[in-house]
Amino acid sequence: MKTVRVDASSSYDVLIGKGLIDRAGEFISKASSAKRFAVICDDNTAPLYYDRVKASLEGSGLSCEQFVFPHGEASKCAEVLGRIYSFLAASHFSRADAVIALGGGVTGDMAGYAAATYLRGLGFIQIPTSLLSQVDSSVGGKTAIDIPEGKNLVGAFKQPDLVIIDTDTLSSLPREFLIDGMGEVIKYGMIRSAELFDKLCSTDIDHILDNVEDIVYDCISIKRDVVEADEFDRGERELLNFGHTLGHSIEQYYHYTGISHGRAVAKGMELITRIAAEKGICSMELCDRLNSCLRLYELDIEIEPSLSQLGDAVLNDKKRSGNNIDIIMCSDVGRSSAVKMTVDEFISILG
Amino acid sequence: MKTVRVDASSSYDVLIGKGLIDRAGEFISKASSAKRFAVICDDNTAPLYYDRVKASLEGSGLSCEQFVFPHGEASKCAEVLGRIYSFLAASHFSRADAVIALGGGVTGDMAGYAAATYLRGLGFIQIPTSLLSQVDSSVGGKTAIDIPEGKNLVGAFKQPDLVIIDTDTLSSLPREFLIDGMGEVIKYGMIRSAELFDKLCSTDIDHILDNVEDIVYDCISIKRDVVEADEFDRGERELLNFGHTLGHSIEQYYHYTGISHGRAVAKGMELITRIAAEKGICSMELCDRLNSCLRLYELDIEIEPSLSQLGDAVLNDKKRSGNNIDIIMCSDVGRSSAVKMTVDEFISILG
Repeated sequence: MKTVRVDASSSYDVLIGKGLIDRAGEFISKASSAKRFAVICDDNTAPLYYDRVKASLEGSGLSCEQFVFPHGEASKCAEVLGRIYSFLAASHFSRADAVIALGGGVTGDMAGYAAATYLRGLGFIQIPTSLLSQVDSSVGGKTAIDIPEGKNLVGAFKQPDLVIIDTDTLSSLPREFLIDGMGEVIKYGMIRSAELFDKLCSTDIDHILDNVEDIVYDCISIKRDVVEADEFDRGERELLNFGHTLGHSIEQYYHYTGISHGRAVAKGMELITRIAAEKGICSMELCDRLNSCLRLYELDIEIEPSLSQLGDAVLNDKKRSGNNIDIIMCSDVGRSSAVKMTVDEFISILG
Repeated sequence: MKTVRVDASSSYDVLIGKGLIDRAGEFISKASSAKRFAVICDDNTAPLYYDRVKASLEGSGLSCEQFVFPHGEASKCAEVLGRIYSFLAASHFSRADAVIALGGGVTGDMAGYAAATYLRGLGFIQIPTSLLSQVDSSVGGKTAIDIPEGKNLVGAFKQPDLVIIDTDTLSSLPREFLIDGMGEVIKYGMIRSAELFDKLCSTDIDHILDNVEDIVYDCISIKRDVVEADEFDRGERELLNFGHTLGHSIEQYYHYTGISHGRAVAKGMELITRIAAEKGICSMELCDRLNSCLRLYELDIEIEPSLSQLGDAVLNDKKRSGNNIDIIMCSDVGRSSAVKMTVDEFISILG
């Protein structure tokens, strides 16, 4: 088992290893004072893992109740959030209790937001089971729901008390979810680590699970560094947004259902790197290297909207500040920075 | 003009004086870096003050747009909150912009919660116009909405960047709202200041506005002390909850519409002080003194539910921690403390 310690406004451990779900009670009883837990999971994850989490918690003298919602990004909305609040109230959860997010990014974002806001804050544990949530969304404290006007537009910063990453859960993931998660993994290589990027280029989607604990550890270590430097997203943390401005526009174009987050981010990285090359910020060779890597993970996709069609959604981008927007671009593998421009400039670049 | 400086996780000024609304632009341009403001107000307050706030902002080179919702506690709900988010998105508000709450406690709580959560946080200015919000809810950073299961069950801590209290707005308040606010004012005297309590006993509802700047200043100073000692409500801040556990149960009994917050708190203080006297924590004379004071402000009311009927709602009280609850009782005027008991004990005391 590997451990990454995150020192943000609160400090917590990220545990990475095989078979950790069956030891959840042991780890949680050390990290949290809560004795009673609301386990939030979707209808894919609940039958796979809830009984094991419950058994482990009970083995450590803890108790839990589950709330199950339909899987998919469409559930990350105010209506399902309202049902979580009703469940917490009906089951008389108090400030001494805690929420466990058991599942992928949708579950973690929404359960974390519920934990941040119900009674102005309960304890919160992350048990991410998808690659996307294990390498990215479970660490760093960003929680959110989508509203009709855009993705993640309503949210809170809520650091978890503990993150338990059981990499065994990745073996049962449908291939498309593994592909999805690789979008963010490649992002980490591009923005901060040529070493990680080279590792990724030397294997492919069919072999990535062979050493996935190392890959997850590399990603979380990068994320830890960035979050510790800028927990509340006023500076360095925006590097994590590489590929995301256009990625979010692509997701919005498909109404968050027609394309996965990782694929949208992959396409966003490809498009913005082409723009960077055209502006002389990086070489055309970087575009080729990125595309080769994306191809190894089946992330070299075609999309329907044109660049100019993606511009409209930029107005609601969270990174926008007044009429200014920071666009993350890479000058080389592992080297990223924010390019400041006006929203109008960016939209005109998109054509 | 009097100023109270609050040093919480962020620091800000509370300005108290006559005619301050017409100087809002001047004060806000010093306290906030935002240039664009979303002014949230209800349909009672908007026609009275919005144009003056807008004129003042524009006079200082700032701009604003208004969102108006139907007045009343029933509006402090997820549905109206969702419409505020839609308004902010449709008007392309960004993290560089700020929200102004212009109105009473409902407006401040809900606008503050929107400011805390939209894009994970915009700037936030309070311009409270009711007595209740001027003496209590506009300072200290508690924001919330109600859900069907209970009042203020969903919320966030969000300190404002500035609070502007124009006491002239109290002159146009309907008498019943002045009465409502006096519930919290008397609470401040009971929990922390015999001097304030004596001041209140020497005047009445018809003359309270004569020296209201002093009264507001006294209340805000007490609240400042308590919030600075315990911003996140883990200890001393719970003293502010005097009368509120039963008060919230009373409001819930009437579905938040049949009785005002101040009246419910007044009744809650009266009931809990009678219980404290029966337990020997205070004298029966304290009950009489409190009741005499409440009578001066027409807060000596009868309610429909019995004590035992109020017990059910206690299970959802935010102050509950597991099976334990802290009930605030006064041993004398100006002297309050938390009495720890189990929820079962408290419900059995209620009979």
